[in-house]
Amino acid sequence: MKEALLYEGKAKQVYEAKNKPGQLVLSYKNDATAFNGEKKEVFSGKGRLNNEIAARIFPFLHEKGIDTHFIERLNETEQLVHQTEIIPIEVVVRNLATGSITKRLGIEEKTSFNPPLIELFYKDDALDDPLINDEHALFLSNVTPSELGEIKAQAMEINKSLSALFETIAITLVDFKLEFGRKANGCLVLADEISPDTCRLWDVNTQEKLDKDVFRQGTGDLIEVYEEILQRLQDVK
Amino acid sequence: MKEALLYEGKAKQVYEAKNKPGQLVLSYKNDATAFNGEKKEVFSGKGRLNNEIAARIFPFLHEKGIDTHFIERLNETEQLVHQTEIIPIEVVVRNLATGSITKRLGIEEKTSFNPPLIELFYKDDALDDPLINDEHALFLSNVTPSELGEIKAQAMEINKSLSALFETIAITLVDFKLEFGRKANGCLVLADEISPDTCRLWDVNTQEKLDKDVFRQGTGDLIEVYEEILQRLQDVK
Repeated sequence: MKEALLYEGKAKQVYEAKNKPGQLVLSYKNDATAFNGEKKEVFSGKGRLNNEIAARIFPFLHEKGIDTHFIERLNETEQLVHQTEIIPIEVVVRNLATGSITKRLGIEEKTSFNPPLIELFYKDDALDDPLINDEHALFLSNVTPSELGEIKAQAMEINKSLSALFETIAITLVDFKLEFGRKANGCLVLADEISPDTCRLWDVNTQEKLDKDVFRQGTGDLIEVYEEILQRLQDVK
Repeated sequence: MKEALLYEGKAKQVYEAKNKPGQLVLSYKNDATAFNGEKKEVFSGKGRLNNEIAARIFPFLHEKGIDTHFIERLNETEQLVHQTEIIPIEVVVRNLATGSITKRLGIEEKTSFNPPLIELFYKDDALDDPLINDEHALFLSNVTPSELGEIKAQAMEINKSLSALFETIAITLVDFKLEFGRKANGCLVLADEISPDTCRLWDVNTQEKLDKDVFRQGTGDLIEVYEEILQRLQDVK
């Protein structure tokens, strides 16, 4: 099903798909990393869980009219996607203030952003993925002003759809990170993954954290909370 | 001429103007500070120089159709200005990459920005004046989206006029910081100061730094280079 390894990231490997030009195999790893790779641990089962979670969320977004690179789940830890040229910008959407923004800008924990707040970060490990503004994004990448506008509009739409999805399973979508890629035809689509690695997910009732923060902060069992997310998503009609 | 001290900043004191409601007296201090106040020194004559330099630059901008808070120079170290509600955002315009941006974003020293690059920083000493994006600016201050657009457009116009002014005296305007304020009538105008404290100014021929970087980097005599700027400005017809 897969051929040459094209790229290995912190959480996924990317392979050429065999006999499918323009398609890739994403292989979800069991590695968890935090603080730009300073903290690292392997969790048996994590790759399978994120693969299954992403393979439920991407089709949900397709139903909502949002294009993504996802084609299908292939097996426990792999999924088939359209090859894209990844825009080297991480797009963060925040509904509630938590994490880095509270310290960086002195915003009180759990402050509600209305409209949701969008932040861009330049994907560059050596620079520690610095916060950038729109002008930086246009200078540092090949996105055009209209593509940047489209990326932000899509991020807001995705936030609306995902927030509603998680609400049905009693979870608050606090914030999340997206990456976009350009397909061969030039169209921008959502790429990378959507999982508890890339979203902050809080139980509506208990405020329990059901995401990678349990690993970052050492406050819970990563596999247990990722299983919880998958189970709740499986209950969605 | 002046009454109660309203505010004391790192480089200026702000007084109520006597018998002139809606006007303020800005008193330029001899203090030089860098690295958010960590490095500090007093330079006899600096207040006079910056007051005289700003009192030449603001009227030049008025001639170019740019509104500022400046009314007139009162004496060696003081100038009369319109009272404004200061927007707590520092607007930086960069023509060439130097200083913080080169490390932060891995951009090579002296890279030319075309169009000039605008950055916003949140004025908050306790937070070390963090870089912010447009969305942060709207959340953290009371600027409206249209005011933010106006601020950026004005900053670009000011850059064009100032770059041309400095070019006539063989100086490259590398980058500079602006602050804007809202007058009683609601109009946004350029406020604060324009001086070698707030601009990076390089001699076109020798590349010599004629600004506060000589103090930041300990590479030259601050008073000597500020005198040089004033003298060259005095030569402008």
